[in-house]
Amino acid sequence: MIRYVALKAHVDGAPQESDFLFEEMPRPALEDGQFLAENIYVSVDPGMRSRLSPGASYAPPIAPGGLIDGFTIGRVVASKNLAFAEGQWVTMGGGWATHSLFGGRGFAIPLPDSDIPKSLYLGILGIPGMTSYFGLKRVGRFEEGDHVLVTSAAGPVGATAGQLAKRWGAASVVGIAGGPDKCAWLTEEAGFDAAIDYKAENDLSAAIAAALPKGIDILFDNVGNAMIERCLPLMRRGGRIVISGQVADYNVPLAQRDGVFNTGEFIGKRLLMQGLVVFDDMMQFPEAQLEMGGLIANGNLIYKEEIFEGLEALPGAFCGLFKGENFGRRLVKIGD
Amino acid sequence: MIRYVALKAHVDGAPQESDFLFEEMPRPALEDGQFLAENIYVSVDPGMRSRLSPGASYAPPIAPGGLIDGFTIGRVVASKNLAFAEGQWVTMGGGWATHSLFGGRGFAIPLPDSDIPKSLYLGILGIPGMTSYFGLKRVGRFEEGDHVLVTSAAGPVGATAGQLAKRWGAASVVGIAGGPDKCAWLTEEAGFDAAIDYKAENDLSAAIAAALPKGIDILFDNVGNAMIERCLPLMRRGGRIVISGQVADYNVPLAQRDGVFNTGEFIGKRLLMQGLVVFDDMMQFPEAQLEMGGLIANGNLIYKEEIFEGLEALPGAFCGLFKGENFGRRLVKIGD
Repeated sequence: MIRYVALKAHVDGAPQESDFLFEEMPRPALEDGQFLAENIYVSVDPGMRSRLSPGASYAPPIAPGGLIDGFTIGRVVASKNLAFAEGQWVTMGGGWATHSLFGGRGFAIPLPDSDIPKSLYLGILGIPGMTSYFGLKRVGRFEEGDHVLVTSAAGPVGATAGQLAKRWGAASVVGIAGGPDKCAWLTEEAGFDAAIDYKAENDLSAAIAAALPKGIDILFDNVGNAMIERCLPLMRRGGRIVISGQVADYNVPLAQRDGVFNTGEFIGKRLLMQGLVVFDDMMQFPEAQLEMGGLIANGNLIYKEEIFEGLEALPGAFCGLFKGENFGRRLVKIGD
Repeated sequence: MIRYVALKAHVDGAPQESDFLFEEMPRPALEDGQFLAENIYVSVDPGMRSRLSPGASYAPPIAPGGLIDGFTIGRVVASKNLAFAEGQWVTMGGGWATHSLFGGRGFAIPLPDSDIPKSLYLGILGIPGMTSYFGLKRVGRFEEGDHVLVTSAAGPVGATAGQLAKRWGAASVVGIAGGPDKCAWLTEEAGFDAAIDYKAENDLSAAIAAALPKGIDILFDNVGNAMIERCLPLMRRGGRIVISGQVADYNVPLAQRDGVFNTGEFIGKRLLMQGLVVFDDMMQFPEAQLEMGGLIANGNLIYKEEIFEGLEALPGAFCGLFKGENFGRRLVKIGD
């Protein structure tokens, strides 16, 4: 049998473990072109929150009873697809399930049989790391000498974005994170020039201004409206705002959300704000993975993983993302 | 004597005629490099509103007692500058004054001695027209087949932006303006595909959606936060928002301003929003003027001017901009 996690009912506000159900289904018979993978790692991603409520996003909402989506790494256990033989490692959007059927739609990418830990393809060499890379380079239009502020900086996207900015020659990289442990890791391990603990600051704007006295060239934001509003007055002429994620706003209905009131800042300072969906850059992933793999091998790019165990751990691991408790890339290991 | 208009005190809310003073000063003696121009036309510009209150903008605020800034067209009447002989027509930032001294700083551009009416260099061939051209082309990244929405569409920036979009091959160009006269002019004279009278619409969002059923590729906005908020859900994937001006927000303190709450739209739709100050494009003005001059000569680009008479008319002409009463480029003729 295949065991999987389904959505109980559309979610209102912060997701709870009780919003999810555990279900079973028989293994399907394979048709030509299909393969079945046994999943070893499943990721939990804050961006998935938007699909648990009705309404438009870049992907359609998940219907009650439907499989929860998620990126997976697994091994092909049965195949009628010539490109994927039994035993092949694969990363795909397999969902929160012990096994996933690939039927030719969506993405399934074979992974090299190398010494690189497979879990990295769900993290620093996967969607989060690619978001950091292309968010900074393409959307942020990074230039040497930039002053960069990264929010949710101890998260898998932010931590990598900040480190890449340093490696590429930023004048200054500052991260915002919650708690002294995360802040210490950012400055002592990940090489950020400074880290701001938003839980400990009474005046976050003043703290940002003090940490980046020349202002901000790139705001790499994973938080949302309130952070954008706060940072616009601190942006430098020609500054760029990368909307990478909005973890503070996903759970909040539009009518109760913080707003951005100072878009007037865009005119005089010629600011540019742009959102990204990193699948647009898929053709360039190998190039980015090569560069980042080299940095990792040399110890110039570090990462942190939090690995939970068992399919049953998935809802809790996901819900914790919205309490600010995660520190690094959060994965659930559901096989061997 | 030189007569000029000065700021009485910093302005709070909508500007009133009583916020301005009429002053006199003697003609200055010229030093080397300087010239004195007698101004014939002076422009009133909504963007100047931000300089009447304290606080940062792209230009510093005007101090009480100071000359009100404005673009001028005039003739050199005395010169110790080799590039500007007596009798030369010139456009510069001369301010609301009968005469202006040019001392080598700021801009002063000689105008060709041609059949083109001189006033156009304060309008469709001046800063407003250049804002339309580079706002659409550089900031809006205009592409053939785009669906374009222009706000304040009967204003000098909006009307030209909409026409240029049509000439360059937009699939559809819709303008928002106030009142049936402006709307009729947009569709019957200026060639817009549709015009929406915001004063007559109960549900402006529905009216926009009906006029642009495929959505918006470029929002060329001169209004501000409330319009951006309204249009974000209607943007197409890859859409661009040009922040050209914010006439609804200039007079409103930050704490009372409308906000943008739905920046989450930026992610899935990969939206891009950028502000512009058209002086960045100054080196390309001649090229744009050449193209637009040709369109004007062939009757393929039209414009509307409202010309007031006399220095005394300046405060009233300016204050009216914020009541939505202007229709076309508003200038004041103060000489012959």
